[in-house]
Amino acid sequence: MMTLSSGISLDPWFENYADRASGLAASEVRALFAVANRPEVVSLAGGMPFVAALPFDNVSRTIQRVLENSGAAALQYGSGQGLPALREHIMAIMALEGIRAGVDDIVVTTGSQQGLDLVTKLFINPGDAVLAESPSYVGAMGVFRSYQARVEHVAMDDEGMIPQALSERIAHLRRQNVPIKFLYLIPNFHNPAGVTLSASRRLEILDIAQAEGILVLEDNPYGLLWFDQPPPHAIRSADEAGVIYLGSFSKTFAPGLRVGWVVAPHGIREKLVLASEAAILSPSSFSQMILADYFETNDWKGQITIFRGLYQERRDTMVSALAAHLPNVSHTAPTGGFYLWLTLPEGLDSKEMLPRAIKELVAYTPGTAFYADGGGRGNLRLAFCYPEPDFIEEGIKRLSRVITEELELLETFGPTATDIPLGVTLDAPPPEVY
Amino acid sequence: MMTLSSGISLDPWFENYADRASGLAASEVRALFAVANRPEVVSLAGGMPFVAALPFDNVSRTIQRVLENSGAAALQYGSGQGLPALREHIMAIMALEGIRAGVDDIVVTTGSQQGLDLVTKLFINPGDAVLAESPSYVGAMGVFRSYQARVEHVAMDDEGMIPQALSERIAHLRRQNVPIKFLYLIPNFHNPAGVTLSASRRLEILDIAQAEGILVLEDNPYGLLWFDQPPPHAIRSADEAGVIYLGSFSKTFAPGLRVGWVVAPHGIREKLVLASEAAILSPSSFSQMILADYFETNDWKGQITIFRGLYQERRDTMVSALAAHLPNVSHTAPTGGFYLWLTLPEGLDSKEMLPRAIKELVAYTPGTAFYADGGGRGNLRLAFCYPEPDFIEEGIKRLSRVITEELELLETFGPTATDIPLGVTLDAPPPEVY
Repeated sequence: MMTLSSGISLDPWFENYADRASGLAASEVRALFAVANRPEVVSLAGGMPFVAALPFDNVSRTIQRVLENSGAAALQYGSGQGLPALREHIMAIMALEGIRAGVDDIVVTTGSQQGLDLVTKLFINPGDAVLAESPSYVGAMGVFRSYQARVEHVAMDDEGMIPQALSERIAHLRRQNVPIKFLYLIPNFHNPAGVTLSASRRLEILDIAQAEGILVLEDNPYGLLWFDQPPPHAIRSADEAGVIYLGSFSKTFAPGLRVGWVVAPHGIREKLVLASEAAILSPSSFSQMILADYFETNDWKGQITIFRGLYQERRDTMVSALAAHLPNVSHTAPTGGFYLWLTLPEGLDSKEMLPRAIKELVAYTPGTAFYADGGGRGNLRLAFCYPEPDFIEEGIKRLSRVITEELELLETFGPTATDIPLGVTLDAPPPEVY
Repeated sequence: MMTLSSGISLDPWFENYADRASGLAASEVRALFAVANRPEVVSLAGGMPFVAALPFDNVSRTIQRVLENSGAAALQYGSGQGLPALREHIMAIMALEGIRAGVDDIVVTTGSQQGLDLVTKLFINPGDAVLAESPSYVGAMGVFRSYQARVEHVAMDDEGMIPQALSERIAHLRRQNVPIKFLYLIPNFHNPAGVTLSASRRLEILDIAQAEGILVLEDNPYGLLWFDQPPPHAIRSADEAGVIYLGSFSKTFAPGLRVGWVVAPHGIREKLVLASEAAILSPSSFSQMILADYFETNDWKGQITIFRGLYQERRDTMVSALAAHLPNVSHTAPTGGFYLWLTLPEGLDSKEMLPRAIKELVAYTPGTAFYADGGGRGNLRLAFCYPEPDFIEEGIKRLSRVITEELELLETFGPTATDIPLGVTLDAPPPEVY
């Protein structure tokens, strides 16, 4: 039974794991992020929403009301599909993005991450393909890998995924007889790329998916957090039978309650409820009742407007700081959401540079986190959602120093490799995934 | 793409599901339970804890304190492994059952159901065997099926699983070259059987598992809810390297917060954290902080004593009512927990009888829910945890009438088959699984 696992740890159960467990590996930069959580480091890495801007007095009253009016129900098990009263509010929220869905079409989940997990569990046999943007959300890459999916990245530009590239990738996989189970898209204020899929491309891509019989999985945590103008309507608004939609309260309210949702065609929705009951029995009644009361009694649209203003100011600060301190480095121009995607000067490597950046007291997420295929060394993700504007400015200054020094080193010595410590500190949250 | 699925529904994505999705089926009695939720029905089916006995004023103060002292952190993402402060309290709780574990050995989950899901995901390849008591927890059967495990039931008696039967079952599977991934046990106040594994058998069974190199998965939601005397120490107290332990706050505090935990050997624990992050990013910070404050500031041991008295009274009521109204029907004699397991007179079928019981305004869970192999028709589970004693008495009277009438029918006409409606109402919670 005693088998030496790879690395230094001795795990007597090493030979007993399922095949899929090999897809579970701590990211190499995880240990670094434990350091990056120190207060003196300006972290542009994590996508934590700025919950301090919530109206805490109102939230407190909401919670008191839930306890007084329905405390026993709030503390009890609930329906596997989720609280009907909350699903009614979800319908109203989605209507803002053009989605018409019935209350029966919605499954409430433990954050939209659980929705991703359930959909993947339902559809992926080992080796099945998932099509995703290039780059794509690191938390989705993690789920897909944990069910042994084959992730196929499709090129994107400033208007999002390129339809022609999608068609070519599908044709390539068809020639190899690889089953394609779904097309995973983050159309609005993409994480990490910071771009938005244009209205015309939404229809083109949907046309391709429909013609090829490929299910679309639309992930939309940031859609309501637009700055200048609303994004085009959700893809789900144009197709009820071929699109699964993932929504979240983590960015428009708070992630600490862990509530998201899935909208799915009838047959899929029924299986999702059963899969969710197998995984967690039911989502938290207490969290759901807090949200239902909050959306019933608070000016939640006004609160989203406050969040928009706040994140817009931070985006402006970051873009200005980049123009001032890194004028020759290119990056995307997000019109909403939390993230901006930066392309490093030729020859620099975002993963190798990270330890030196943290030494200079600034953290970012290396582009490699967002690829299933090792890509992304020339890019990094900057999150402008959490630090106050002064810190964003300071963080970009520090990043500018790091990049300048790296370029000087490169000019003097040529490409170098740096040791990234591979120790893993699981106690720290993985800020790169939000 | 349009394919007629089995049954009447037309699911255009029917051919796209993963193989494991075939294990997801609504139980045949689910629609009946939607009816059984009507207030005029005395439900002895669901295992809902009686949360109305919680000290709501204290709980309310606890929640206010969390919001005032650490509201922004409570509403934010947290660590994938769970809040260290809560893990400290979990150590203290487990010490009551003889378990010595470090704070690093614990992973907080969305109810212990998620722990079950993660362990199964980590270990089960399709066709791998899981050994389980006969009967076993319906929610575990659901998880095991959802990963295509082969569940092998091992006979039990009034002292729990029979070691000799375990050895024979292992030998049988070894001859067939079936990989055995773990042995799933509910040693205390078993759900549904209502029996407790004796101290000597705990050691015998652990000896067998160790000799055979089989991991033990110990599920212990009810251990602190003993009536007469504490159960023997947890199996985990005797083996740190070969036992994964599942704990829950759902029965000693409240299920509505959805917080449970897993204790696992180091290598497994590390993978569990990664699997949990893939599935849900992190458990609810808010729920965890409420629990940590509650255990810090409240007389939680006193509250568990209150729960014990309350459930003991209900057990006494049910056992007396059975003696009075069904004197010739045999059942187990639980010394803690929520459930009692009843053996029907020869010739009666718990599943066929259920619609008639609901017509008589009493509900139970048919024994078939607790078997992966179609067994259990001669048994049913009665839960004494939720209804007030008067209702328990009335429920047993009604059940007695149903059984008496069934026996008369059987004598007059011989065995009959009844149609159980197979329509599925997913909106209702599945009370049979708690």
